Amino acid sequence: MSSPVSDIDLHAHLIGQQGGRRALNTPVLVVDIDVLARNIQSMAAFAAEHGLALRPHAKTHKSADIARMQIAAGAVGVCSAKLGEAEAMANGEVDSILITSPVVTAPGIERLIALNQRIGDLRVVTDNPTNVQALMNAATTEKPLQVLVDIDPGIRRTGVASPEAALALAKQIAAAPSLRFLGVQYYCGREQHIEAWADRVDAMKKRTAYLKGIVDQLNAAGLSPQVITGGGTGTHRIDADLGVLNELQTGSYVFMDRQYNDCDLTGDGVTPFETSLFVDARVVSANTPGMATIDAGFKAMATDGGPPTILSGAPEGAVYHFMGDEHGAIVAADATFAIGDAVTLAVPHCDPTVNLYDHYHVVSHDTLVRIWPVQARGRSR
Amino acid sequence: MSSPVSDIDLHAHLIGQQGGRRALNTPVLVVDIDVLARNIQSMAAFAAEHGLALRPHAKTHKSADIARMQIAAGAVGVCSAKLGEAEAMANGEVDSILITSPVVTAPGIERLIALNQRIGDLRVVTDNPTNVQALMNAATTEKPLQVLVDIDPGIRRTGVASPEAALALAKQIAAAPSLRFLGVQYYCGREQHIEAWADRVDAMKKRTAYLKGIVDQLNAAGLSPQVITGGGTGTHRIDADLGVLNELQTGSYVFMDRQYNDCDLTGDGVTPFETSLFVDARVVSANTPGMATIDAGFKAMATDGGPPTILSGAPEGAVYHFMGDEHGAIVAADATFAIGDAVTLAVPHCDPTVNLYDHYHVVSHDTLVRIWPVQARGRSR
Repeated sequence: MSSPVSDIDLHAHLIGQQGGRRALNTPVLVVDIDVLARNIQSMAAFAAEHGLALRPHAKTHKSADIARMQIAAGAVGVCSAKLGEAEAMANGEVDSILITSPVVTAPGIERLIALNQRIGDLRVVTDNPTNVQALMNAATTEKPLQVLVDIDPGIRRTGVASPEAALALAKQIAAAPSLRFLGVQYYCGREQHIEAWADRVDAMKKRTAYLKGIVDQLNAAGLSPQVITGGGTGTHRIDADLGVLNELQTGSYVFMDRQYNDCDLTGDGVTPFETSLFVDARVVSANTPGMATIDAGFKAMATDGGPPTILSGAPEGAVYHFMGDEHGAIVAADATFAIGDAVTLAVPHCDPTVNLYDHYHVVSHDTLVRIWPVQARGRSR
Repeated sequence: MSSPVSDIDLHAHLIGQQGGRRALNTPVLVVDIDVLARNIQSMAAFAAEHGLALRPHAKTHKSADIARMQIAAGAVGVCSAKLGEAEAMANGEVDSILITSPVVTAPGIERLIALNQRIGDLRVVTDNPTNVQALMNAATTEKPLQVLVDIDPGIRRTGVASPEAALALAKQIAAAPSLRFLGVQYYCGREQHIEAWADRVDAMKKRTAYLKGIVDQLNAAGLSPQVITGGGTGTHRIDADLGVLNELQTGSYVFMDRQYNDCDLTGDGVTPFETSLFVDARVVSANTPGMATIDAGFKAMATDGGPPTILSGAPEGAVYHFMGDEHGAIVAADATFAIGDAVTLAVPHCDPTVNLYDHYHVVSHDTLVRIWPVQARGRSR
């Protein structure tokens, strides 16, 4: 029995070859490094111009390599959705991390405190007095844990449900010697994808007035929040105009999936960001006129955002349908396909799609320039 | 900076402890070894009783450990959906594998031939004369590649589209010195989930008559198929009754997800299989009366089959809603939840859910008995 060779070993041989992208085994997750770098630069410049700290959300890319690019461009650190994602970022030399979901269980809190010892600047949110008590008991006065109060903007997912609860929680944190009250988090998830700019502005004005009221109460109580963090790719310009947040958590701008490409991000229809993330696939069966089966299905793309957009490999107007775990159909009347034909897709929802892959294949034009591991893939706990 | 410890390292310490399941970090993919073993035994007994070869589909579990349990119980080998999945099974000492999707690209065929040299009994399907030519050119006469003709039962996913095309392809394979014509594959994917037994029987009678016609033509042409493989958990009893298939590819019976639990598998409403696969989650936020947020969202469960069923941790009638990548809502009027509360879910569609996890946490009652890697997770190419 000869020794096994993985397709990643085989792909490594293609690095540096012009056209190497077209020789990859498929389906494969591809990121265009030139576009990615421009997106990162553009958001960093926006934040700097508006005097906002930028703490991009790593739940989008799950990559310490991309996190380090963001920090090199001016980001103060990153956000992580879960503890395991934060651990993966820390393993990749990222030293400032905000965990944006509460960590509530005993084994989770044990790992959280260990991570607080490992890196320079760990921050975590909470929305519950029992949780604050548990964090206080586990943390040490030698290196207090930095805690933010998570405020629910009406999603009912996480966050305190009233200004009174926010104030009480901030007081409880500030009084705990092993904790440090750092500020508040306010993530308006539902508003990010409101397609019309004017509707999004209206919604954010209402939401932000509520946040402002809480900040005013905290200030009056002598608990001024040093950090007021939130925002996303869909609202970052509005958040900057409204002037309450002082830190932005934008994530998807690095890749610009179909969901965000459907949104006007600036009010003038000109988006400063471009699509940098793709799935390259190939035709594996072509026995029916006007359609072809490609090798990318539920296991190649998350389905929660609907079907992907076909960018190349099929005539304009062609559509994709999921055909099970392993396959998708490209339907295009009058088109002729042959097995092996290359098809490039733009993904509908980037975060859970990235989570399906172990590697990014990083390209510049059609040259494979490197292969990055998706360090935080699967770190959902 | 102290060295990182993964949650899997921490979980390993819980093996053998009664109640260890309840101390796991969540979300976690849990398989009940006792139920799993009964399901495996039950299908093996059914196949033996009916004189059918059993070649369970490993795309369901992606686990060489479960594959070896199936083979120990009498299976002749396994099916794999993709080449990478087959390579993972081979790395896990599985020696007989049928790849149920065509392998059409040059780098794929190179890996396929390497795998054929590594294991005793590799089989692959094809549906295209150009592909047969490429396989023939790559394979060697020292160890001919075993090839089956994939026949489309009307899904238009993969498979030849007519009896004439099936016959022509079988002739082309049989004439190639480096290939061996082994038989045909016929997977009626659409019929597996027809809920009413009588409707499923009617549909399979029609579909199987079409297959029988092709088999008759192959026999008449001196190309008798040694292997006639297909079937699934939803139709295996009907397939056995109809008597054309001689090998069953059932997959989901090992786990019994919600989609299959909604089907009558035997015609009398008594299913011989039980649910063995679960996602254990926990409440992370509980600030809204009548609902709670748990730590399992798009990254913990595939969404293509709808929401999961809540098995424990919430009152009867409680429902789950996806709340983004990391979270889900449990809605149950009048219920009271506290952070840290355990919730167990039955997954809607097992195959792509398993693909989200690196490990199975194997339990017997509430004791964690071992941790298995999901060896073929992410092997979509």
